[in-house]
Amino acid sequence: MKPPTPTTATTTTAITSIGTLVTNDPSLGQGPLGLLQDAAVVIDGDRVAWVGTTSKAPATDSRLDAGGRALIPGFVDSHSHLVFAGDRTAEFNARMEGRPYSAGGIRTTVAATRAATDAELEANVARFTAEALRQGTTTVETKSGYGLTVEDEARALRAAARHTDEVTFLGAHIVAPEYADDPAGYVDLVTGPMLDACAPHARWIDVFCERGAFDGDQARAILTAGAARGLVPRLHANQLGPGPGVRLAVELGAASADHCTHLTGDDVTALADSAGRTVATLLPGAEFSTRSPYPDARRLLDAGVTVALSTDCNPGSSFTSSMPFCVALAVREMGMTPDEALWAATAGGARALRRTDVGRVTPGARADLTLLAAPSHVHLAYRPGVPLVDAVWRAGTRAV
Amino acid sequence: MKPPTPTTATTTTAITSIGTLVTNDPSLGQGPLGLLQDAAVVIDGDRVAWVGTTSKAPATDSRLDAGGRALIPGFVDSHSHLVFAGDRTAEFNARMEGRPYSAGGIRTTVAATRAATDAELEANVARFTAEALRQGTTTVETKSGYGLTVEDEARALRAAARHTDEVTFLGAHIVAPEYADDPAGYVDLVTGPMLDACAPHARWIDVFCERGAFDGDQARAILTAGAARGLVPRLHANQLGPGPGVRLAVELGAASADHCTHLTGDDVTALADSAGRTVATLLPGAEFSTRSPYPDARRLLDAGVTVALSTDCNPGSSFTSSMPFCVALAVREMGMTPDEALWAATAGGARALRRTDVGRVTPGARADLTLLAAPSHVHLAYRPGVPLVDAVWRAGTRAV
Ligand SMILES: [Zn+2]
Ligand SMILES: [Zn+2]
Repeated sequence: MKPPTPTTATTTTAITSIGTLVTNDPSLGQGPLGLLQDAAVVIDGDRVAWVGTTSKAPATDSRLDAGGRALIPGFVDSHSHLVFAGDRTAEFNARMEGRPYSAGGIRTTVAATRAATDAELEANVARFTAEALRQGTTTVETKSGYGLTVEDEARALRAAARHTDEVTFLGAHIVAPEYADDPAGYVDLVTGPMLDACAPHARWIDVFCERGAFDGDQARAILTAGAARGLVPRLHANQLGPGPGVRLAVELGAASADHCTHLTGDDVTALADSAGRTVATLLPGAEFSTRSPYPDARRLLDAGVTVALSTDCNPGSSFTSSMPFCVALAVREMGMTPDEALWAATAGGARALRRTDVGRVTPGARADLTLLAAPSHVHLAYRPGVPLVDAVWRAGTRAV
Repeated sequence: MKPPTPTTATTTTAITSIGTLVTNDPSLGQGPLGLLQDAAVVIDGDRVAWVGTTSKAPATDSRLDAGGRALIPGFVDSHSHLVFAGDRTAEFNARMEGRPYSAGGIRTTVAATRAATDAELEANVARFTAEALRQGTTTVETKSGYGLTVEDEARALRAAARHTDEVTFLGAHIVAPEYADDPAGYVDLVTGPMLDACAPHARWIDVFCERGAFDGDQARAILTAGAARGLVPRLHANQLGPGPGVRLAVELGAASADHCTHLTGDDVTALADSAGRTVATLLPGAEFSTRSPYPDARRLLDAGVTVALSTDCNPGSSFTSSMPFCVALAVREMGMTPDEALWAATAGGARALRRTDVGRVTPGARADLTLLAAPSHVHLAYRPGVPLVDAVWRAGTRAV
């Protein structure tokens, strides 16, 4: 009679013969990315248990030979707007053809989102997070902001929470159409009943601080009210023109100032002086899709600012879910090196979400791993547009 | 006893409920793309047998419900360099970091290609054509040009012919290193023994007509010698600066002048006056990957020039195999509308290869079809970087 097989709580898997491993831990390998060659990673349950060279890898329950391919941390997409209905193909088409288009921009999506059922909204969030996962993204932040009523914002956050990792209350995306003549009344709604209904479902609070949306004083009132309810601020800032957003984000200790396209020297200094507390999250998909000038990542990096890259995925101004595309754009258009762009799309996103368990491949981190059909992460910029994601593990489970 | 099932030479399949069908035949639908909504396509063997609205589709052996997704002609990538070995990651990385890099550019790839076995070269061609197919490309042209000896060029063409549709002899890519001090001697080799060895394996002949490669007189001599052997000219022209290439291409009746980045008014007029005989093939992946200014597609289209889009896939200056990426770039950077870019990437490529059986979805055409995870072809530009190809048929066979 055979002895019973010992049972363990978890199984271990080794991924071996990794051509280039990006750990994002300088103590584990070369440079800021902590690069290892001919590397191996051991997954134990949902965590990374061991990282090193293949020849020293411990025995495991199973093994996958990467055959020289690169392994990187799963992308951390720290800024998206996935709870919506409808699309805006006609508006995009008109913009690209240089034709005027009289549709209502964000308002078009608000109307479609309000008209959608809960199931339709959830199906959309699930579809786009699955699409992102196939492209190597293992952590997604998403926002409300197309409901703009108490109930529509709250249900957007509930839908987001069921399919994404990080949820942000963005009742202050634009002034709701019903309050077009009473923006102060809308701010009262957002900081009052809407915040009451939404705070339990979100970790973050965000405001679109821009001419035509909310000014600095309104943004301050909304973020402060959110903070009093335990929500941590982040801010859409300085996308379409200069403004108070970036300095306000730093002043309030926001985790991230997002877009950062039009910055003064004072804005850059404020971000740098925050010493990484407020990350500059750059969203080049928005500039690509609106034919706008790109933010200057080089200037921020040279000043010592912590930079994240994200998709801004939304149906109006940046309908991409592709972090590899954002990496390629960052290198082509924003003066980032391939190494800097990879860091910003993984560790940078984690910083912008104040997470230490993702965006890295180190012992104890969540086993979020993206295997590339390429020998190194540089190919994400070197081979733009090519789907290079061969496999994805999320929390230790093979997901793609 | 059941009667025997009647056997037919081919089986028929209908793809129905297509949200937007791009036929590229204005007589079949709206506008230059010949668009049909709620459409169906019938495949009979390797050909398109019928196109129309779903409600009128004839009975077929099998049926696939597209569920409102868009169907477009398979992309025609009329310009690539897939017969090579090695890659040039370090050179790309240095260029993007602004560091000097002393490697030999094309010469690096020539050395690696000469050192590779036939099997290695073929494996690369097969890998990249399969990668292109997964991205919706069903017709691929590729070139020699990394051998630069009689035997290395001939074996490159043999490898290309086994995996691609259209094969181009590009012995005149650069002057072979052995002839660095005797370029005239190299032109004699290309037009003599190399042409003898290569002409049987190719349909096309091409020259890199550029300062530092071959001048107008050399290009004329090489293309004329090729034409005398039955090869049809096409030409790398006006990529890095102004020059005689485009006008020479038109004068010699070349099928295509490729790159067209630096054009004078006379160049544009010459292309327009060719009335589509010489197509302007634009390769925005090269400008993306070398941080160079893009060609002005709008100027060419407004002048009445026939424009094609292609990848230029090669390990030095444009290592993308993605036609969707080129479409998105054409819209963002070159003033093309989404409709014009789609046409150029399908029908335009077919014109540049003088093919009437591909680049369209019309009765009698080869059944090369790409099904998108989107309701219209506009999403290729509207959703940049996202892998939107759900299924591909090549010559009537489901290939992806
Ligand atoms: Zn946003
Ligand atoms: Zn070329």
